[in-house]
Amino acid sequence: MIGTNVLRPGFVQLRVLELESALTHYRDRVGLTEVSRETDGRVYLKAYDEFDRHSIVLREADAPGMDFMGFKVINDVALSEYGVALRKRGLEVTEIDAGEQPGMGRRLAFVAPSGHRFDLYADIELSEYGPMVNNPDVWREDPRGMRAIRFDHCLLYGDEIDATKEIFMDVLGFRLSEIGYDPDGQKIINFLTCSNKAHDIAFVPYPEKNKFHHCAFLVEDWKDIGHAADLMSRYDVPVDIGPTRHGATRGYTIYFFDPSGNRNEVFAGGYTYYSDSPLRTWTGDELGKNIFYYEKELNERFLTVVT
Amino acid sequence: MIGTNVLRPGFVQLRVLELESALTHYRDRVGLTEVSRETDGRVYLKAYDEFDRHSIVLREADAPGMDFMGFKVINDVALSEYGVALRKRGLEVTEIDAGEQPGMGRRLAFVAPSGHRFDLYADIELSEYGPMVNNPDVWREDPRGMRAIRFDHCLLYGDEIDATKEIFMDVLGFRLSEIGYDPDGQKIINFLTCSNKAHDIAFVPYPEKNKFHHCAFLVEDWKDIGHAADLMSRYDVPVDIGPTRHGATRGYTIYFFDPSGNRNEVFAGGYTYYSDSPLRTWTGDELGKNIFYYEKELNERFLTVVT
Amino acid sequence: MIGTNVLRPGFVQLRVLELESALTHYRDRVGLTEVSRETDGRVYLKAYDEFDRHSIVLREADAPGMDFMGFKVINDVALSEYGVALRKRGLEVTEIDAGEQPGMGRRLAFVAPSGHRFDLYADIELSEYGPMVNNPDVWREDPRGMRAIRFDHCLLYGDEIDATKEIFMDVLGFRLSEIGYDPDGQKIINFLTCSNKAHDIAFVPYPEKNKFHHCAFLVEDWKDIGHAADLMSRYDVPVDIGPTRHGATRGYTIYFFDPSGNRNEVFAGGYTYYSDSPLRTWTGDELGKNIFYYEKELNERFLTVVT
Amino acid sequence: MIGTNVLRPGFVQLRVLELESALTHYRDRVGLTEVSRETDGRVYLKAYDEFDRHSIVLREADAPGMDFMGFKVINDVALSEYGVALRKRGLEVTEIDAGEQPGMGRRLAFVAPSGHRFDLYADIELSEYGPMVNNPDVWREDPRGMRAIRFDHCLLYGDEIDATKEIFMDVLGFRLSEIGYDPDGQKIINFLTCSNKAHDIAFVPYPEKNKFHHCAFLVEDWKDIGHAADLMSRYDVPVDIGPTRHGATRGYTIYFFDPSGNRNEVFAGGYTYYSDSPLRTWTGDELGKNIFYYEKELNERFLTVVT
Repeated sequence: MIGTNVLRPGFVQLRVLELESALTHYRDRVGLTEVSRETDGRVYLKAYDEFDRHSIVLREADAPGMDFMGFKVINDVALSEYGVALRKRGLEVTEIDAGEQPGMGRRLAFVAPSGHRFDLYADIELSEYGPMVNNPDVWREDPRGMRAIRFDHCLLYGDEIDATKEIFMDVLGFRLSEIGYDPDGQKIINFLTCSNKAHDIAFVPYPEKNKFHHCAFLVEDWKDIGHAADLMSRYDVPVDIGPTRHGATRGYTIYFFDPSGNRNEVFAGGYTYYSDSPLRTWTGDELGKNIFYYEKELNERFLTVVT
Repeated sequence: MIGTNVLRPGFVQLRVLELESALTHYRDRVGLTEVSRETDGRVYLKAYDEFDRHSIVLREADAPGMDFMGFKVINDVALSEYGVALRKRGLEVTEIDAGEQPGMGRRLAFVAPSGHRFDLYADIELSEYGPMVNNPDVWREDPRGMRAIRFDHCLLYGDEIDATKEIFMDVLGFRLSEIGYDPDGQKIINFLTCSNKAHDIAFVPYPEKNKFHHCAFLVEDWKDIGHAADLMSRYDVPVDIGPTRHGATRGYTIYFFDPSGNRNEVFAGGYTYYSDSPLRTWTGDELGKNIFYYEKELNERFLTVVT
Repeated sequence: MIGTNVLRPGFVQLRVLELESALTHYRDRVGLTEVSRETDGRVYLKAYDEFDRHSIVLREADAPGMDFMGFKVINDVALSEYGVALRKRGLEVTEIDAGEQPGMGRRLAFVAPSGHRFDLYADIELSEYGPMVNNPDVWREDPRGMRAIRFDHCLLYGDEIDATKEIFMDVLGFRLSEIGYDPDGQKIINFLTCSNKAHDIAFVPYPEKNKFHHCAFLVEDWKDIGHAADLMSRYDVPVDIGPTRHGATRGYTIYFFDPSGNRNEVFAGGYTYYSDSPLRTWTGDELGKNIFYYEKELNERFLTVVT
Repeated sequence: MIGTNVLRPGFVQLRVLELESALTHYRDRVGLTEVSRETDGRVYLKAYDEFDRHSIVLREADAPGMDFMGFKVINDVALSEYGVALRKRGLEVTEIDAGEQPGMGRRLAFVAPSGHRFDLYADIELSEYGPMVNNPDVWREDPRGMRAIRFDHCLLYGDEIDATKEIFMDVLGFRLSEIGYDPDGQKIINFLTCSNKAHDIAFVPYPEKNKFHHCAFLVEDWKDIGHAADLMSRYDVPVDIGPTRHGATRGYTIYFFDPSGNRNEVFAGGYTYYSDSPLRTWTGDELGKNIFYYEKELNERFLTVVT
């Protein structure tokens, strides 16, 4: 079978400089639900349409950025198999005990060549605030703030992005949906998917390892992208770029920053990917259109500001 | 691995009473592209965002309805394995030669307990009118008519729908995403998916085997559902119900008929399904809301008119 | 000059059977702001994008319906002139003292041949919750509930609707934008406007005088019509019909009832009317399409249930 | 009566360097209908939802820009009165014969202090391609290209914009809906309206007289702004800025250029203006947000490139 046992990006743990302003941002502006604050200071949040207990973890620290990103796999057997396969590939795999995050089972962590830590896990409690399942209404409560539906994907900056891509493809069974080059003919981006989404994770080359470009939240459509932009202007959320559209993935988008400088995206649309979809390729002369389909040019900030 | 090697509903072959009026409907109203007319009289069409050569096949006949529905599987090995597994399950499997539909490889056909014929296949030519892959624009030409993105799913009426469901689940690896009951406590609908879509096929019990309720085309959003409704009023396309929303799947919808009486749907939205998503269930007292979330009641025509 | 000195529908005073459930409806579902509760029991509300102090007045009573509807005119001189002109036309005009509604100046009240009471007024306090005017954000707070922008218009049922129309046109300077006939060739509706809107008030013939069909709230677009429908299903707000579209006015619409049985509408779109726009006319054979462009048929409830 | 007898911006005559490429732009991209090409070389176009014969006039010339902009007034008596009032104000008024543009009655032309020529007229033939009036469908044909609904307004650059504003207000009865200042405390923009629209014309100070910033076409909503952006990227229509939103007027917008360098806008939304609406004011420190609500900063091109 040519598939993957990875279900989806399940959570991301972010470092923030100050917890209260971060909560105002992710809860009141993005519209997430605060699930719990734990004794170690970490705060857990989730989007309204996610079944799992949490998807965003905030940790107060001296510098912003991503601690690690978690992928949920289909079951514990698959989790163990991934551990074996990663070690066979020469990667060091660390087992994180169940309960290190509340409600979550054991995790297997590895550091990709790009310098980013990824955690795999099979078990997490279902949330009592998840989607309804018995005579389900379309939502329990009218979505608030930017009306984020779910944590969707991350874009990460680091070196050795092709080596990292190969691990995601060869070991985890991801597919390469789309790639782009810069005007010098260098690979500038790899889009990888483990689902019917155009991307579940993407990597951009950068001289430093383990940098975080953004985490993205899905919203319903272009109207909700505009609504998110209204909120950002009203509440002085710093915008990077948008509302606009990506050439790659075709997603509607707006990029903005949390109070600690971590970049966020709200995202809608994007094509449906199947494993027989041809690879989409962007040449360097169309780099601007690749990233920002309407502007057809990159802004410097998008290329250089990472946490 | 707990997955499926079925990629998606790939095509449906429909019987129409009169070819020219059917073409006006599917090409000019729904917005499909006419791919070819073959010497045996069949006409092949596709939606603009599909890579494969065709997805809708029209055949002139004395009575409307569905000849068969095709599912594309990931490769020829998987196709053969499905053939073995179906036979092992006791089903008769017929091999259809490559080229029986232009551009398509060999197919394996079986008749489900519901009386419907399904064809599996692994190979079909890519269309020259498919999505762009080199510096791809979001579309080649501004979508026309109802702006149908792709052939999305079918809803079929027949008996033995639970036996049929089990074949789709046990043999083909589909998942059951959502079910509903009628006020008498009888199962009224099974939604089955082989992807991240809320459904790729659905079955409703009916005293007669092999009946066709509708085939659905995906459109971008609720705005395009309204636009499709404008077109239907302008061009006197008979509407069954809508624009409205489904409780089940959450999809935005409008149902209408082609000139031969085959029901079509344009559809947008719908939740993202993962294999760990809990089963959603609708009790009989909420049957109306299950099917039509806004009206909260069924119309008789929806329940009884099939081809 | 061929114009009118009537600015717009300014408010409507409605009778409700029970105040608290009415407030839940208009405040939490429709999304209005509660402005004040006065000692006489009346409650005043407004939509977020209205400058004036209030636009909806609720009065607890034994039977639902409309007490009267108010139109704001450009200034007190014009108000007096309208008083003179109405009396000259043979209508009895009653002066209501300033302050009878809080923050409102004197009103001139008359009863039209249809049996409905209309109040004209020139002065009302500006709300502190009105749109911002200094470096104005698009809204002060993210619109809630159905995101009603403003009180938009009323549709009233009564007899002598052509005589009423003539008073609105001859004395108040309204324009007739659109008319419709029933299959018997009887006038079924007059749409009247004092602005660039397709209608500010409309009248349908009915054997009884002074009946209230609905008051409408503007929402931004078709998406917000769908969102309102989601709210109605989630919170069991009884729906009459919709989401759908009107042939007449082209407005997107959904009709629903407050807990006392008064019909409401949320409305979006509609053409821009100018005083040189030709009269639009609907013949009786297209009555269904006139009222409900998508269904092309009336529902009995829409024709007969009034308060 | 405190009103105006000016109905709306009726047409604009633009100079283009090359007629065929201009037609491709305005007809195939913007989606206007070509009405006629006359022997003097001028080409007349209209948007699908306009009753009048034409609204855009293209004239081949050596330099791009605006020849003049026409406002339709309510009748010939009002036209004559405006002529008298303009002359009384000290302006030179030139009578243009009926038929100088096909289907159009006599025009009165004057040059405002800003250097721009404006024509007033009362009569123009109705188009056979205008909106339907008998059992009217929402459109005759599915709108094409950017789906422009109507010619909406112009923004003009010139000197003496306050003197110009006063003529529009004192003589023509326009209202000032919104103003903005630059960081030096200088008036940067006057928005003027003769209707319920947030603006029908706007003026920005510029050292040179008679410069054209843009003409705007209305589209239905934010979705159609995005669709217009898709078209611009697909067909290499040069974009100035957007999709974005204005703080002033609240309109959703995207600015782009015709092949001759004339700037166009597609525009949706914007608040409803009434003559009792308070003046909205933007201080200099919020100039960026005034013009581009999402970006909160101006781009140099928007300020300096005019034709």
